Amino acid sequence: MKNNRLEKVLHSMKEHEVPQMIISDPAAIFYLIGKWFSTGERMIALYLNVNGNHKLVLNELFPQNEDLGVEIVWYNDIQDGVEILSNIVEKDKVMGIDKTWPSRFLIRLQELGGGSRFVNGSTIIDYVRQVKDEEEKELMRKSSKLNDMAMERIIPWVVKGLTERELDAKIREIYKELGCESISFDPILAYAKGAADPHHATDDSKGKRGDCVILDIGGFKDDYASDMTRTVFIGEVSDRAKEIYDIVVEANRRGIAMAKPGNRMCDVDHAARSYIEEKGYGKYFTHRTGHSIGLEVHEYGDVSAVNEDIIKPGQCFSVEPGIYLYEEGIGVRIEDLVLITEDGCEVLNHFTKDLIVVPEE
Amino acid sequence: MKNNRLEKVLHSMKEHEVPQMIISDPAAIFYLIGKWFSTGERMIALYLNVNGNHKLVLNELFPQNEDLGVEIVWYNDIQDGVEILSNIVEKDKVMGIDKTWPSRFLIRLQELGGGSRFVNGSTIIDYVRQVKDEEEKELMRKSSKLNDMAMERIIPWVVKGLTERELDAKIREIYKELGCESISFDPILAYAKGAADPHHATDDSKGKRGDCVILDIGGFKDDYASDMTRTVFIGEVSDRAKEIYDIVVEANRRGIAMAKPGNRMCDVDHAARSYIEEKGYGKYFTHRTGHSIGLEVHEYGDVSAVNEDIIKPGQCFSVEPGIYLYEEGIGVRIEDLVLITEDGCEVLNHFTKDLIVVPEE
Repeated sequence: MKNNRLEKVLHSMKEHEVPQMIISDPAAIFYLIGKWFSTGERMIALYLNVNGNHKLVLNELFPQNEDLGVEIVWYNDIQDGVEILSNIVEKDKVMGIDKTWPSRFLIRLQELGGGSRFVNGSTIIDYVRQVKDEEEKELMRKSSKLNDMAMERIIPWVVKGLTERELDAKIREIYKELGCESISFDPILAYAKGAADPHHATDDSKGKRGDCVILDIGGFKDDYASDMTRTVFIGEVSDRAKEIYDIVVEANRRGIAMAKPGNRMCDVDHAARSYIEEKGYGKYFTHRTGHSIGLEVHEYGDVSAVNEDIIKPGQCFSVEPGIYLYEEGIGVRIEDLVLITEDGCEVLNHFTKDLIVVPEE
Repeated sequence: MKNNRLEKVLHSMKEHEVPQMIISDPAAIFYLIGKWFSTGERMIALYLNVNGNHKLVLNELFPQNEDLGVEIVWYNDIQDGVEILSNIVEKDKVMGIDKTWPSRFLIRLQELGGGSRFVNGSTIIDYVRQVKDEEEKELMRKSSKLNDMAMERIIPWVVKGLTERELDAKIREIYKELGCESISFDPILAYAKGAADPHHATDDSKGKRGDCVILDIGGFKDDYASDMTRTVFIGEVSDRAKEIYDIVVEANRRGIAMAKPGNRMCDVDHAARSYIEEKGYGKYFTHRTGHSIGLEVHEYGDVSAVNEDIIKPGQCFSVEPGIYLYEEGIGVRIEDLVLITEDGCEVLNHFTKDLIVVPEE
């Protein structure tokens, strides 16, 4: 167990009056005990109790050779893992449940009376995870530095007549070359109409002169995710597209300027969104301005109009406004990650936001 | 909506006295409406009601151009999707919940009183999905036929001094060449000690003379999964390894012989397991004998000692006994898929189970 992190979680459990909770999210378990588990359909439950009686309930198919710093309670495929868990818990007390725990386990635990009341306890650990410690900050910087390099390496390929699918294969190779474990999400590498459709799936389209190209990419390095978007143009850029580009860059800058302690997450969203609205494109900015990031590419805490949480030093999130004009085949998104400091933020991406027109070749 | 499938599910809901249920599993939604959804952390809920009031609650980020045959109720990122769902349901009636629905949605629905009682409803649809209809049977045959071809194509590569990781890349290429959408699970391509460890992760090991090599592979073709295991040897096979191989093949045959309507799933497990026990290797057969398969590589219904469900025509599952002698570096597993007929089963894999010794090269 990483005791400094565990202490923060236990402290928060006490504050929220959740004396016990079940953590099942692999990233949350990794955060606390430093090991990834991938147990498929089999139940895994890290049970935390403010009285110190922590247990990891695990299927025998996943034998552990190292000491994880927490007692393991084993079950096997012919046993009811939830029943074994229910014998550990305090049945007369509130039970916090991790957000992604599959309902079949929760319903079974409820049938067995494994708690006096069941609440969503995941925000307890999610808020702790939002605030990166020094070790994590360094890893976030390192991961985004590699992402800057990945962006630099992928752009020259945009011009070579590669299809989206070929670009997709290329970027995966690039992350491998850079020493990343993997991509952190299916990259979006989309031309023109594809760029203008935020839910476009990578296909065999090729770019042509004048096309915008959205490059939304990220990788995992030492378990921490990166995520950045740039939009470039092939051969030439129309006045219309340049206008849109400039608006999005300015919205990105205004969002970043609001990313500091004391402001609310929604203030960042508002700064980016209101500028785009002012310029007349509000209805074409169809998504939230950003998301928290760390061990997972999407972590708890949106940069959206409804998130009034106060920003704290150590948080890390994306600022990624966009404008999508599907009929015109123009889509532009610019995304950076920011790491909140004591009085502002450090932008983790250093790749230029100047407009890039790649030669047609 | 695929009405014949929907009718079966509604019929089963009535039988189980579950008048309404929420389906969230992408495979179950695909089964019923013929479309895959991948909504990430955003809620999706296909609400079924025996009174015919079916709805699909979906985030606006996933606009639909085609008619899905079910009314869509939209929500967006600044709305509470579960609250919108709760206004559709019958609050005074039992609510069935899909097994994988994340707990945060279920807890919220419970807070909103969205049902008089909450039960795990997924077995209702899982049992319907277990029995493949004619269209599905044809797709399962087609998928496994390609898997036979994949096995034939990968074995010659075992000898070329490729590492496990290189073999892994090769098998992915092979499925692509064969026209499969993707692999159906991370393949296990493991030499010697790796083969003898059922949880071995693919690494840079190379095979050497005398090694056993487990090849556990599968792909998706037209949305249906294949899954087969063969074990081959490099250069030569020791008497000891041959003994183990023969036992596993016979256990596989005995399991398959019990795969017929009227028997129980545990009878198949018992047939394979008791033979291995009889030969003195019971403790080295450390997993269940098999699993159901279809749109997902692991579907509801294990072939295990505790599953007393009666086998029905149309079911499809794996029979995959194995023996793992870690200290000796010998691991053997032989797996076929079977499709239950009116009076027995059709084995979907035709690749030989004769012992193969690949030349060392």
